[in-house]
This record gives sequence, structure tokens and C-alpha cells, in this order.
Amino acid sequence: MSATDTAPSTPISFTDAELYAAHDGGKLSVALTAPLETTRDLSIAYTPGVAQVCRTIHATPEAARQYTWTSRLVAVVSDGTAVLGLGDIGARASLPVMEGKSALFKRFGGLDSIPLVLETTNVDEIVRTLVTLRSSFGAVNLEDIAAPRCFELEERLIEALDMPVMHDDQHGTAVVALAALTNAARVIEREVSSLRVVISGAGAAGIAVADILLRVGVTDVVLLDSRGILRPGRDGVTGVKARYAERTNPRGLSGGIAEALAGADVFIGVSSSSVPEELIATMSDDAVVFALSNPTPEVHPDVAARHARVVATGRSDFPNQINNVLAFPGIFRGALDAGARRITPEMKIAAAAAIAGIVGDDLAADHIVPSPLDPRVADAVARAVAASAAGA
Amino acid sequence: MSATDTAPSTPISFTDAELYAAHDGGKLSVALTAPLETTRDLSIAYTPGVAQVCRTIHATPEAARQYTWTSRLVAVVSDGTAVLGLGDIGARASLPVMEGKSALFKRFGGLDSIPLVLETTNVDEIVRTLVTLRSSFGAVNLEDIAAPRCFELEERLIEALDMPVMHDDQHGTAVVALAALTNAARVIEREVSSLRVVISGAGAAGIAVADILLRVGVTDVVLLDSRGILRPGRDGVTGVKARYAERTNPRGLSGGIAEALAGADVFIGVSSSSVPEELIATMSDDAVVFALSNPTPEVHPDVAARHARVVATGRSDFPNQINNVLAFPGIFRGALDAGARRITPEMKIAAAAAIAGIVGDDLAADHIVPSPLDPRVADAVARAVAASAAGA
Repeated sequence: MSATDTAPSTPISFTDAELYAAHDGGKLSVALTAPLETTRDLSIAYTPGVAQVCRTIHATPEAARQYTWTSRLVAVVSDGTAVLGLGDIGARASLPVMEGKSALFKRFGGLDSIPLVLETTNVDEIVRTLVTLRSSFGAVNLEDIAAPRCFELEERLIEALDMPVMHDDQHGTAVVALAALTNAARVIEREVSSLRVVISGAGAAGIAVADILLRVGVTDVVLLDSRGILRPGRDGVTGVKARYAERTNPRGLSGGIAEALAGADVFIGVSSSSVPEELIATMSDDAVVFALSNPTPEVHPDVAARHARVVATGRSDFPNQINNVLAFPGIFRGALDAGARRITPEMKIAAAAAIAGIVGDDLAADHIVPSPLDPRVADAVARAVAASAAGA
Repeated sequence: MSATDTAPSTPISFTDAELYAAHDGGKLSVALTAPLETTRDLSIAYTPGVAQVCRTIHATPEAARQYTWTSRLVAVVSDGTAVLGLGDIGARASLPVMEGKSALFKRFGGLDSIPLVLETTNVDEIVRTLVTLRSSFGAVNLEDIAAPRCFELEERLIEALDMPVMHDDQHGTAVVALAALTNAARVIEREVSSLRVVISGAGAAGIAVADILLRVGVTDVVLLDSRGILRPGRDGVTGVKARYAERTNPRGLSGGIAEALAGADVFIGVSSSSVPEELIATMSDDAVVFALSNPTPEVHPDVAARHARVVATGRSDFPNQINNVLAFPGIFRGALDAGARRITPEMKIAAAAAIAGIVGDDLAADHIVPSPLDPRVADAVARAVAASAAGA
């Protein structure tokens, strides 16, 4: 039986009518935090009173943190080039996703957030646009921007903007994957750093997962793109891929997923390429399988479970859902609370530890991450990230 | 007694503590319009459900009007160069004003609005930035941008963006001034078009007031800048001022405010230069004085009232407050409701008529405009503007 045969394409059912009704008029609105009911209210919140607040910020620019909404405002920025599994659908069509992301920031992180979608895919233009707008918000969440452009764009924006910037498709996924792997390692009683890890997919998520695992001391990481195992000199291994080809694959493997998985401890799938059961069967005895493609995992979790001790997916209808919402609301809130100017690797690792820590004594093979709806998660992540920022 | 002697600088009293408390944390927040409480909610509002909505917009871009918040979202855009009476204080320090403006859009127009402040004063860069962002919002309210750059910027954006664009410091003021003048003319039993009008100030507001009065048939408009009456060939009369010097001052006056006011029916002050009582005394018998500078009117209303039948200011503590909030929420809502791609002169004139019409039978010399808090105004303006858009 192939892995995909049994994977339903829509895990939770709803009608088209319900779907479009939920999106009708968009999913965000603006609310007021000061009353505007009387002439006196207007005089305080707007003219003439507001002039004094403007003068305060003009004299002391840091006061904008206190007297504007920017200290809790995340811009969700996309050019619409890598939207969900839909690919390059453009800025306008990506907006429902970005509104949803902003809604998640509010619901889970208590942060305000606005979507800004850009009718350009030119890195210089995106940087210039956000630099021009930089006083309008306090942080930037990059979303659904195609690799490899996303890597250069994130690096450039981190340098150009004096505020937290994070491409969530990279680091949100990496943080939650690390949290899950931390607890999976506890289940199989292994050190994370000793694990042989195979990552299928060398796009935004794959590269970031590899990076965070290398940072926490995993030495045997094998990365694959659609043409097989990354190694220096292989066809198509350029740019960011070339950098990671140098840092991964310590045993010098070549070939494809079969060669990579033989004897591996961990499979992390962040591409949409399916993996046959017989290859999962070649992994080590206490294998860990994170099949994160959505809606169709690389291997169906029931199939993977025949051969693996711990199985996780990106889906809500199976145990161990690896969902970015566990990470990004708390990471941004912690960074903004701390007044951090960067989101450092240490802050991301602290976030992963906080997510893993929530599971605590409830750890089990089918419970390595908290529920995305667990209200404790964002607070714990925010505290850990802010503490890391303060120590940095 | 000079006009300014008796004008308090802060018409309504409040403490610094009250003021800063009202602005603490900013004046806006984002709210959700769809529930995000359950896994099923997440599946509908975000992944995987949202993908279908994205595909719909990708296939039919106009569907973004229905399935995103952009059809009711106004970007309040400023470069911070002409903020209240504070001048060029920059983008960051202007943000409390822009948040207040966004709050007014919500409170009075039922529209969502976000402030976007720009760290550039270059017209090309502002146009490029907003063109890049154009799928993120449904309309642009330009605010507190210095003249004469504001004229070119508004013209360029109207051409470049396929959506309603309006510089409120120009047209909001002009619309409310026309509404007030319409009713003032009823009080003194004159036709608006027959009035001799003097406008002190040839910046954003003065030029726009002149323009709308010329459009409704006023033939005798005299415009003054800080150097006196605009006439072709005068020193400093270039650019937009030169265009209006050609269209105004039909009697070929030269000189200053004294020469302009002698025998005039209407004074409209939109500069901060004070006008002495003895010059107001030289106006016609049924004079109309709109002294709109804030917080210090060009002539104190009690002083003006000794010589004028109708007196208005920009202040809330005197009768006849000429406040842009009477116009902009309804103008933008009407334009967005109608799906209009431009805010035309006809729509602005329709808005003025709607504002004037609200006063109806309650017309009196001290009641020529509705209260800014009158809940009927925005609806009436929106309906009139939408009807004008539909007829256009």
C-alpha cells in the first residue's frame, strides 16, 4: 500500500458555504483602544491634544514604543510566490492567508498584526519598501516567499531594519520541529545530538531545520532536494544549498532518499515527495518520522507507525501536530516585549525548549508537542524568548 | 483688542496624565471577525481551507473585494512633513496623529484603517511604495503632507492607483467649508456663486477651497499667501499657485489682506496669520467669517461677530465647528461602497451638499454645520457620494 492511498485530502470537513462565509469581508478589523464619544474625547485622542504626544516622540523617538501601537504590531509581509501548496499566486490572491496569519498573531500571541502584500518579487524593491515603511510597525513576519529568494531577503531585512524580522516558513517550522525532536528523543531515550537525521526538502523549511539542528549539536544531518542528497559539487547545488552541502552529509553519501534513510534515526519531510513504506522500514529500530507536508504527508502516519516509534505530521486529525502556530506568536511577542532588535538563533532554540517543556510529564510517543490550541504555549515561548533576548 | 488676545490656546482642559494615558500603547488594535477557538475553526479560517479562497481570488481578482478586508480598508499615509501646526516632525512622530485619523475612520465611517508612515519625502519613492503595496488596501487617505509637494503627490497617486485617493488636508477641508458656506449663504439670503470670497492661505487647504468654490460657480475668489494676493507674475507665484492666480482675482487686486477684505462677503482663513478687527470691519454688511486656524483662529470669533453675520472656526468650543471629520469618513465609505476608482470633484460637491442638508430646518447663524458627533452625517455623506459615483 502506498503512503498516499489512505491520506484524505481534507482532514476536517466543511461545506463551501461555511468556508466562504468565514472569509466574507475578510477576517480582520480595526478596533479603537481609546473612547471617541465626546468632544472632550476627540480633543484628547486627536486634535489638539495629540500634538503634545507628537512633540514627545519628536524629542525622544523611543517614546513611539510607548505611545503608538507599533511596539506590539507585526507586519505579515508576502509577495505571494510560495503560498501554501499553491505556488506563485501573487500578492492579491495570497491575502486571505496573510489575514489568517495576522488573526493567529492576535488570537495566540495577543499581538496586533496587519498584512502587507507586495506587487513585486524583486528583493531590492521589497527591502526598499519595508525600509521606507519602517516606522509603521514593530516587527516583520515574512510569509510564503519562495526559496532561495527568501534567504537573501531575510538576511537583507535583518540588516536593514532595526527590529525583529523572521521568515516563519523557515524558522517557525524549524523551532517546532526541534521542540518535537527534543521530546521524541526523550521517548526513545537518545540524545538529540547523537541522532542521524534525514531532511527531505531543501527549501525554506528544510534549510532552516538543518540549520537549527546543526546549532544544537546534531552532527549527522543529510539534506535532500528533488534531485537527491546534497553534497558539494553535485549538479544544482549552488547558493544556500552549497553552503549547507558543506555543513551536512558527514558520511559523504550520494544518491536519493533510499540511500539517505538506510539506518537513519529521524526522517523529517518538508517537501511534497512521498516516501514508500519499504524505505521507512530501512530506518533504525527506534525511528522517528515527521511527515510534515500538508495536506498529504510524505508517508501516511498509520503506515509510518508500523516501523517508527514516534510519528508526527502537520495535520490536526492525527497525533503530534507540528504546527508553526506553536512558535511564531510567542517568538514575536517575546522579542517585542524585550525590545529586541533581532531574533537570534539562541532565541529560537529557547522557544523550542519552551514548547517541548510544556509537554512535561505528559510525554508519550503520541504526545511530543502541545496542542496548537494550548493557551500556555505562547506565554511560555514569549517568556523564554524575552529571557534569551535579555541575556543576549 | 487684538483677535488673538482672548483665544485660549487649549479650548478643552485635560491633564498631561489623562492625555498620555489615552495614547499609551497607541489608539488602535486589530480584532478578528471569524472565530479561532477550535481545530475546525483553524481549518476553515486558515489551512487547509483558506487555500480554496486564495484559488478563487487567483482566478477572479475582483473576488478580493469580497473575501479580504481591503474593500473597507483605508491606508492613512503620511510622510510627517506638515503635521498639525508642528510642521515637519517626520514619519515616526506623526504616527499618533495617523492612528487618531484611523480611529476616526472607524468611529465615524465604520471603515477599517491602518496608518502607514513613510521615511521619505520623495514623491517618486512614495508613489513607488504605495504602488508596490496596492493590493493591501482599498483606498488611500493622504495626511499632513506639505504643500506644494502634496498636489503633485495626490495627482500622481490618483493616476497610479486604481482606487480612491484623497489628500484630506485639501479636500476634507474644502468639502466642509463648502457645506458651511452653502448654509451661511442661506442665512444671509445670497447665492453662493454671487459671493466675493477671500481665502487667506494658499497651501493645501486654501488651494482646495478655491478649487471647489470655482467649481460651484463662485467667480470672485481672491487667494492670499504669506506675501499677499496671488496674481499672475507676482514674486513667488509659481507652480500650483500660478495656476490658481490665473483662475482667481478677477478684479486684478494687488496688495495684502486689507486690499482683499475691503467689501468682501466671505473670509476663509486657513493660514495661521491673524487678521485685525479693523479689517474685518471693512467687509460687507452681511459678512461671513470662517477663521479655521487651530488652535488660534485668524480672528477671535467673538471679535469677528461684532462685524459678521455668520462666524465659524475649527474649534469645538465655539459654534459652527468646521471639522474634516464631517467629510472624510463618509466620502471614503461612499467611494468604497460604490467600488469607485476615483473620488471625483462631483463626489466632493455631493458630500458638501449632504453635510449642509443635515442642518435642514435647524439652520441659524450659529448652526450652519452639524456637530462632528452627529451620527447622521457619515451615512448621509456616504449615500450622496455613492450615488454620485454611480451616476458618474
